[in-house]
Amino acid sequence: MPSSREIHLVRRPDGMPRPEDFAEVETAVGDAADGQVLVQNLYMSVDPAMRPRLTAGQALNEAMMGGALGRVVQSKTDAFAVGDLVTSRMGFREYFVSGEKGLTRLTPDPDLPLTVHMHALGMTGFTAYGGILFIGQLKDGEQVFVSTAAGAVGSVAAQIAKIKDCYVVGSTGSADKAAWLKDEVGLDAVINYKETPIREALEAATPKGLDVYFENVGGAHLEAALRRMNTLGRIPVCGMISGYNDGQSAVRNLSNIIYSRVMLRGFVGTDFMHLYGDFQRDMAGWLKDGKVKYQETILEGIDNAPAAMIGLMEGRNTGKMLVRLAS
Amino acid sequence: MPSSREIHLVRRPDGMPRPEDFAEVETAVGDAADGQVLVQNLYMSVDPAMRPRLTAGQALNEAMMGGALGRVVQSKTDAFAVGDLVTSRMGFREYFVSGEKGLTRLTPDPDLPLTVHMHALGMTGFTAYGGILFIGQLKDGEQVFVSTAAGAVGSVAAQIAKIKDCYVVGSTGSADKAAWLKDEVGLDAVINYKETPIREALEAATPKGLDVYFENVGGAHLEAALRRMNTLGRIPVCGMISGYNDGQSAVRNLSNIIYSRVMLRGFVGTDFMHLYGDFQRDMAGWLKDGKVKYQETILEGIDNAPAAMIGLMEGRNTGKMLVRLAS
Repeated sequence: MPSSREIHLVRRPDGMPRPEDFAEVETAVGDAADGQVLVQNLYMSVDPAMRPRLTAGQALNEAMMGGALGRVVQSKTDAFAVGDLVTSRMGFREYFVSGEKGLTRLTPDPDLPLTVHMHALGMTGFTAYGGILFIGQLKDGEQVFVSTAAGAVGSVAAQIAKIKDCYVVGSTGSADKAAWLKDEVGLDAVINYKETPIREALEAATPKGLDVYFENVGGAHLEAALRRMNTLGRIPVCGMISGYNDGQSAVRNLSNIIYSRVMLRGFVGTDFMHLYGDFQRDMAGWLKDGKVKYQETILEGIDNAPAAMIGLMEGRNTGKMLVRLAS
Repeated sequence: MPSSREIHLVRRPDGMPRPEDFAEVETAVGDAADGQVLVQNLYMSVDPAMRPRLTAGQALNEAMMGGALGRVVQSKTDAFAVGDLVTSRMGFREYFVSGEKGLTRLTPDPDLPLTVHMHALGMTGFTAYGGILFIGQLKDGEQVFVSTAAGAVGSVAAQIAKIKDCYVVGSTGSADKAAWLKDEVGLDAVINYKETPIREALEAATPKGLDVYFENVGGAHLEAALRRMNTLGRIPVCGMISGYNDGQSAVRNLSNIIYSRVMLRGFVGTDFMHLYGDFQRDMAGWLKDGKVKYQETILEGIDNAPAAMIGLMEGRNTGKMLVRLAS
């Protein structure tokens, strides 16, 4: 019976999350009963979308929820064997006992690093894929803007648009990330919104306007994009991180969507699960061909899970933020 | 050669339009040349959507543009005969000479008043019809909210939703209009937003949330609706009148669309012209059956066109705002 350290939310953050909002708790984990497995987590994911749940949704004084990749270490069901890799929403803990429900077996691609299944080849990449192709109805050669373009979702969305021969502008908040987007990813224009006001920078970077804005930020980014949208443009809304910590992110020019007949659509990955097979085939190929590049920030040990969450909100990660819990 | 009085925009309004922003100018109108007709306008339409054009789009010191219904009084083309009724964008003037382009022959329904072709059975009603059924993808029995529900577009949208067996909440800004919506139109709930804050009133009126919000207002109305949207809800955005005069209408909780996967879509009537035949058949039937009721405010004479525009922005009209130019 292993003991498992887990991270609880003990206080709802007021603004940016702080270390005191979290607590590490050690618990005894029971053995698997009939129909159950015991899973040891190897990696856990930290995502911007977790922030709103800290304000409402995530229970206090319980282990937090989040994406995880683990290995079955004890099985009392025919559905999983010891050694199987499984993905779940049971992050922020080292071990857990589970029935079959909520576990998905992962067959790792032998030609790719295991961790890509936690981002570009997992739900992160799928969110970008379906968001830009299905919700955003991207057509070859269109004018595209992706915010947080160096982030785990944004970088995949931007690169899919490049694969579709689009003109792609990306925004990011640091010189290092801007350089990666320009030099490694090869975007057509890159905006460091901390150096140049987003409104002026986006206007200069989009001489042909915008057909699709892949929205991760909200606020001033969305206002700037709304000024540039072409007729019948689409704005798939993946996130609005600019308002996650202060609780709001006002948009003053939403009426721009009327005359240009623009669509905004909030979405989550489960809106287009019918595309998951296509996604896995396409993305595995693009990763192996080097057409989709990625970056990772991997912190070590569950002790660092709160720091990973806080660092993500402060933009201190590069690409996908992961915590390695075991190997 | 008749002389024609016409209304010019002479100054862009700063906030609410004022009489000094407009001027009445008398001009000589020539005879129709080959291929042309001379038209005498009978009615002109004043619409909320005209307000943004006063800020940008409408040229200064020229006759303003707007929907009109006129009669051909001189014809030098086989396309139109003297006495034909025609609709055009050549409002705000008594007479005009025109080629065939921009004129649409109107065959009035003998069982309905002529003026309904200027609203419920014209582009106003069509905007409501396509907006709620096509853009809003309304399904029978859904939960619906319509803002400016006593207005020319809103009242039609709300009644179509009632015809489709929906639960329909309408908002308006006066007790008289609220009484008409409740007693004559038969909406399920009516909000007078000048008496009760829209947020609290809408929450109380929508125990099952909202599947469709037909948006005419923006600002606080949209914020209130975003709090009530059900999963996969739709917000067809017809207008955002609350921001037309102060130039902005901030929305702070747009991120609500992410988890509920809500769609907003700006639209204009020409987005679904393929439905115009269906619309005319359906709407003529509904009007004759008394299933769609309407109200009109008709001012007399072109002198009153600026007052009609100003009164519309101040909500002093009841239903469709028209100006009668001749009979």
